[in-house]
Amino acid sequence: MKLTVKDMDIATGDVPVVILNEKDAAFLDLHHGDRLTVQKNSRKTTAIIDIGESDKAVAQGQIGLFEEVLDALYAKQGDTVTIKYARKPLSLEYVRKKLDGKELTYKEIYDIIRDIGDNKLTDIELTSYVTANYITGMSDEEITNLTKAMTLTGTQLRIAKKPVVDLHCIGGVPGNRTTMIVVPILIAAGLTVPKTSSRAITSPAGTADTMEVLCPVSLPISKLYQILDKVGGFIVWGGSVNLAPADDRIIKVEHPLNIDAEGQMLASIMAKKASVSATHLLMDIPVGKGTKIDNRKQAAHLQGHFERLGNELGIKVKTIITEGSEPIGNGIGPVLEARDCIWVLTNDSRAPQDLREKSLEMAATLLEFSGKVKKGQGMQTAIKILNSGEAYKKFADMVKAQGGKDIDASALKPESIQFTYVAPKAGIVTTLNNSSIAKIARMAGAPVDQGAGIFLHRHCSDHVRKGEPIMTIYSRSREKLNYALESLKELDGIIVQ
Amino acid sequence: MKLTVKDMDIATGDVPVVILNEKDAAFLDLHHGDRLTVQKNSRKTTAIIDIGESDKAVAQGQIGLFEEVLDALYAKQGDTVTIKYARKPLSLEYVRKKLDGKELTYKEIYDIIRDIGDNKLTDIELTSYVTANYITGMSDEEITNLTKAMTLTGTQLRIAKKPVVDLHCIGGVPGNRTTMIVVPILIAAGLTVPKTSSRAITSPAGTADTMEVLCPVSLPISKLYQILDKVGGFIVWGGSVNLAPADDRIIKVEHPLNIDAEGQMLASIMAKKASVSATHLLMDIPVGKGTKIDNRKQAAHLQGHFERLGNELGIKVKTIITEGSEPIGNGIGPVLEARDCIWVLTNDSRAPQDLREKSLEMAATLLEFSGKVKKGQGMQTAIKILNSGEAYKKFADMVKAQGGKDIDASALKPESIQFTYVAPKAGIVTTLNNSSIAKIARMAGAPVDQGAGIFLHRHCSDHVRKGEPIMTIYSRSREKLNYALESLKELDGIIVQ
Repeated sequence: MKLTVKDMDIATGDVPVVILNEKDAAFLDLHHGDRLTVQKNSRKTTAIIDIGESDKAVAQGQIGLFEEVLDALYAKQGDTVTIKYARKPLSLEYVRKKLDGKELTYKEIYDIIRDIGDNKLTDIELTSYVTANYITGMSDEEITNLTKAMTLTGTQLRIAKKPVVDLHCIGGVPGNRTTMIVVPILIAAGLTVPKTSSRAITSPAGTADTMEVLCPVSLPISKLYQILDKVGGFIVWGGSVNLAPADDRIIKVEHPLNIDAEGQMLASIMAKKASVSATHLLMDIPVGKGTKIDNRKQAAHLQGHFERLGNELGIKVKTIITEGSEPIGNGIGPVLEARDCIWVLTNDSRAPQDLREKSLEMAATLLEFSGKVKKGQGMQTAIKILNSGEAYKKFADMVKAQGGKDIDASALKPESIQFTYVAPKAGIVTTLNNSSIAKIARMAGAPVDQGAGIFLHRHCSDHVRKGEPIMTIYSRSREKLNYALESLKELDGIIVQ
Repeated sequence: MKLTVKDMDIATGDVPVVILNEKDAAFLDLHHGDRLTVQKNSRKTTAIIDIGESDKAVAQGQIGLFEEVLDALYAKQGDTVTIKYARKPLSLEYVRKKLDGKELTYKEIYDIIRDIGDNKLTDIELTSYVTANYITGMSDEEITNLTKAMTLTGTQLRIAKKPVVDLHCIGGVPGNRTTMIVVPILIAAGLTVPKTSSRAITSPAGTADTMEVLCPVSLPISKLYQILDKVGGFIVWGGSVNLAPADDRIIKVEHPLNIDAEGQMLASIMAKKASVSATHLLMDIPVGKGTKIDNRKQAAHLQGHFERLGNELGIKVKTIITEGSEPIGNGIGPVLEARDCIWVLTNDSRAPQDLREKSLEMAATLLEFSGKVKKGQGMQTAIKILNSGEAYKKFADMVKAQGGKDIDASALKPESIQFTYVAPKAGIVTTLNNSSIAKIARMAGAPVDQGAGIFLHRHCSDHVRKGEPIMTIYSRSREKLNYALESLKELDGIIVQ
């Protein structure tokens, strides 16, 4: 059947969609969620059908194309296209199999993950897969196969110079920017560290957002290989490298349902490590109120899973369960966190000691675990590299190799509109709730406004006198500062007793 | 936050959607699938957020409103609206509870079903509920509660004159238009029959489509009460009465997943019967190749469920398991099926005997089951009412009461473009596959083109000579006839041996 193109002037960002008039759809026996092949001359593409309920959007004889479809066909308003019913992808049969409670084979999981990554499954189909995994769970073998499928459907960095060291924190603690200190220490020690990091989803800054204050974090693969050769490591945004691309779409469905299927989470983290050829991985699981994991039992359970899965993938995994009940470092937000990291790397007196110590512990553990230094010598090696300025030199090289300028710590200034929250009475700071602090910093503008965020003058257990500053909130506009102040009032996340 | 309205000129048909620019969404910590309250002056409404990935569709500072939201706010392009984060509906916590394998209470199911009917759940949320029901199943108590919730969240007809008789066929057999014959027989016998029927979803005609050939089938509730008083019954489209409104949205999700959760199906059928205050229900379960139920064991299982559920709702249910391996009647498509029904009601010599006999059986069963006549007298009463013309008179009254004209059977003519398929050799017709015949009729234009469809000259077990007609396909255009002929060639649904 031939139809006339209407440009809908809208993109879905994932699955390509076309809109048909209700009458045309009824005639062709097509339903919401069915698939069509749309062809213009020699170009064709597959899209999902949405059905217009009135003639206003799309009249009979018309077909409304979203941007993804227009682009694929080089089509424009008024063009004629031919449509044909397209079969559902085979992977949907495997989704059905999972719905019916059966275990999936590697090939079946691979097909599903590939189709998710290629945007071939609709929200409805994807949700039913994610829900089925959540309800029925996955066997260890399925988790391993899922991890392999996620790895192989994305980009893979093949790195010859072993060991290849990686680290990962499962998150939830604001300011916890250890990566930018640990990676240069390890590189300076001669290890290979291809670090891909995430951007903030619900936090005030991810490592990628923070690193971006100093240099580009989206680089072509060929450039990454060059930097590895020259510097020994990098810190870039994982999203730009297209590692395990199915992951983003799965998260987009998990987020509104507020589910985080354990097997899916394990696979998604470990696939990204396998994708960069990691041989040794340090996993940081912070435990505490307001983090993702609130008790040690759960942390130990996860630890077992990470180590088993690493074993299957040929990655040695070491897990540390760390204290996570309050923010680490003093700065929260991209610029403020970058400044903390530079202060630690340059042994500045303003460097937050908790961040320095946690970073040294992690670097020491990885130096020993990877076999770079003997057992018992990790900490002194790490301290030497940090104190001597070697780590900072490597970091500066890395920033420049990624396309950044010379680092100027004095230029790392927060936004100018500020408010300082002071102790309402004398006492001890007993609570600096992670999620409250994160929320206030986000309302102030972080991470979109790089200089927005929070500087903590005090940490938990610190004594304060009435009127002494506890934290300063920085914002680009009075309006955003007001949003942050509203959150501060509402959340009751800071307690002095 | 204040934003400027952009009219997206598109309707979703269900959940109200707004589009935010990526940067505004990030600043407000809003994600795909979150909810917003959108306010213009004193009017406000809740909508689901979609996030534009480029500035092209919706720039920073703008908000793209779909039709549902524009209408709710009386808003237009360029207006200023205020947005605020809105909490997720409480019912999502109950969906989560079901995902976690727990049984839901009546109140929890009610809240979910109400929010589905009110278009408050997104496709992702709804899919996860439907998938969870499919995977974990529902207890008998949950099915009962679901049925009650579906009933109470929609319109209910309160009918004092008992017994109130209803009938339902679970479908899958083309041409099986018994309702239009059984209902007038029952009314003529003095019973109350408030029949709501469906339109075709995947078939060439539903009872509502066929009845609509003769009269309107979307009537206001007040009119339905009047017709019940005056005539004793009606045959209208259930969709216009807003019975169990959650059902349509659930089907919209089940269809692309090709799942039909049994508990959901039971509840959806029985809720519609409870909604019209039915006291006696005849359930027709056709069994045979190409229908929905292909073996008697499955049919018996369903029978048990319908009877149990009826018992809980105060509806007496009688189930008949009928032969369903080929179409019933000769006409397939709205006009052709309406003509068959009129021929049966007017005792015309062209009336298909299989349709007449099945209708009489059903009417006889219901006359006895409802207590209208003594056991053993149902069939003779039904035959008397049909043969005497009383049933036809009642049917004609009903058509006029619903706003139709005098019935003129000779005006019921199929479309003029036709093709007759003849026997390729002498033999016996062994197969007239239901789903193939349905597909051909739909490709020919049914039910959108009322006169399109198929007339069967022969049924299964009939002898044919080479070249004798088996069926004629009617279509409004040569193009549609060609589509039908392609299906005829492909499907191998008609076999002479």
